[in-house]
Amino acid sequence: MRVALDAMGGDYAPHEIIKGAVQAARTLGVTVCFVGDEAAIRRELGEYAEGASFSYEIVPAGQVVTFHDHPSEVLRTRKDSSLYKAIRSVADGKCDAIVSAGNTGAQMAISLFVLGRIQGVLRPGLIGAIPSTTGEPFYCMDVGAVADWTPENIVQFARMGQVYCSLVTGKKAPTVGLLNIGEEAEKGSRQVVEAHELLAASIPSFVGNVEPKEAFRHAADVVVSDGYTGNIFLKTIESTAEVLFGMMKAALGSSLKSKIGGALARSSLRGVKDRLDYSQYGGVPLLGVKGISIVCHGRSDAAAIYHAIRVAKTISDQGLVTRLEALWK
Amino acid sequence: MRVALDAMGGDYAPHEIIKGAVQAARTLGVTVCFVGDEAAIRRELGEYAEGASFSYEIVPAGQVVTFHDHPSEVLRTRKDSSLYKAIRSVADGKCDAIVSAGNTGAQMAISLFVLGRIQGVLRPGLIGAIPSTTGEPFYCMDVGAVADWTPENIVQFARMGQVYCSLVTGKKAPTVGLLNIGEEAEKGSRQVVEAHELLAASIPSFVGNVEPKEAFRHAADVVVSDGYTGNIFLKTIESTAEVLFGMMKAALGSSLKSKIGGALARSSLRGVKDRLDYSQYGGVPLLGVKGISIVCHGRSDAAAIYHAIRVAKTISDQGLVTRLEALWK
Repeated sequence: MRVALDAMGGDYAPHEIIKGAVQAARTLGVTVCFVGDEAAIRRELGEYAEGASFSYEIVPAGQVVTFHDHPSEVLRTRKDSSLYKAIRSVADGKCDAIVSAGNTGAQMAISLFVLGRIQGVLRPGLIGAIPSTTGEPFYCMDVGAVADWTPENIVQFARMGQVYCSLVTGKKAPTVGLLNIGEEAEKGSRQVVEAHELLAASIPSFVGNVEPKEAFRHAADVVVSDGYTGNIFLKTIESTAEVLFGMMKAALGSSLKSKIGGALARSSLRGVKDRLDYSQYGGVPLLGVKGISIVCHGRSDAAAIYHAIRVAKTISDQGLVTRLEALWK
Repeated sequence: MRVALDAMGGDYAPHEIIKGAVQAARTLGVTVCFVGDEAAIRRELGEYAEGASFSYEIVPAGQVVTFHDHPSEVLRTRKDSSLYKAIRSVADGKCDAIVSAGNTGAQMAISLFVLGRIQGVLRPGLIGAIPSTTGEPFYCMDVGAVADWTPENIVQFARMGQVYCSLVTGKKAPTVGLLNIGEEAEKGSRQVVEAHELLAASIPSFVGNVEPKEAFRHAADVVVSDGYTGNIFLKTIESTAEVLFGMMKAALGSSLKSKIGGALARSSLRGVKDRLDYSQYGGVPLLGVKGISIVCHGRSDAAAIYHAIRVAKTISDQGLVTRLEALWK
């Protein structure tokens, strides 16, 4: 399995990005195509000259996409960028998946344009894993691709989400819930109510509306929503946790007593932080395009990239795209 | 100032509800009209026979609205309920505000029907205070009333939110931000983009889009959104915090070392929990109706009720309704 890695995308590129990819290449047996500034990549790879060998290739790219670049602008003027060329290599059949921690909007636009939509898919969407209290994550789709939506989009997210969830968890018939502000079928906007009706009519394992509280209790394996709400949901979880940990850290440093207490409890508290750490779930795949395109958080570190490649391998080995295509055949 | 209290609404009614109201009556000098089952109210009030006297009245009500009752059903068949009669007393000019921890949907419906809309208001909305990292809360509107919305609704939420925020904080020109999934003006659904344009054109202190992360950093005094998204936002914050504290508690109990650490750090960690405690901000007023109607969380304890009455007094003393009416004159 060959993965195209956008070596230049992300807050900690190229160092952490390449570090994570090397780890994946060494332990998972994947071949990594490092796409980006050749000199920078060679410099980073120099660090791994010793130790276990691994399979890789370098694909030079002269341009870089920044977080401020507008997707449409990127599509027109950045065809020599690491992001574009990495996605191109999947479209050309040279790689099986692309992983980037760069500009999400640009990655979605290029993936859609260069890989194309799977026949029958109205709008591709992003699926993200979110930790639950049971220890097993649930999968939320769409977490940011489709802000203008129809109930049909939501049903497609449910069906694609089920396929993805069953590939990564091994579950036979993952349950589906609709993110909503109450459990009653008539809750939410008219459009949300229509989505509920359509889900109830077309997804046998639909469990109904799921409020955030219930989602965290793993009320459903796959929680569907439009991309605007899903993105607010994901970002709110992330921000709330960040704020809380920040306050906690400040509070533990506020007195000698709490400092000692904090030191004793540190490993337990770190365990909580780790459990909530998204990076272990391996990025956010864009489902519905003809290829595997995994969007990673801009702040991805080596571990996050490693896990994204791990997930890319899992879903590639199991033929994700073929399985999604089969949904509309 | 006279406040009508739905003594029967809430998970901990009537005990905690009445306890909080007695505290408010004693320390804030308000008169409380306890509306509900007379025998139950008298029994509870027996506990406060000793101690400082306070001003109150009992308004008997034979029915109770439960959390499962449908708002339209309540409007038709529960005119003798504590919730209905409490709101009625405001419409009749006998009380200045109504506070309930009961069925939110029913409270909104009855408030709208019995108190009526302020002239010019398209849709009343709920405004909630949310803790920020600066220590000063921000105000989010709408957090659950209007799921089907127009950009004009959002501008009205901004204007009403500013009035409310200035009354409770003393700020002259509170800033307004639009809850969104990115800072750029073109982010979000078409409708959200339109709301952005309308806000930019009509609210001088509009600061633009605010992502959840920025909202927590108090990027704006008032954060506006539609009621569906605002409700997901509020519930996600609440649930994430709950999940985190739950995990933390379990982690601190997991070993002797962390137990000791937890005990030493307890007061500091409790401080964090207290800072995130919504109840101190005093419920969620429904702005846009001709009267003060404060919705409290179903799980409100005495402190939450006390603070809701405190806020009711503040905004009543400063003529909230008159000020909101002035916006459309």
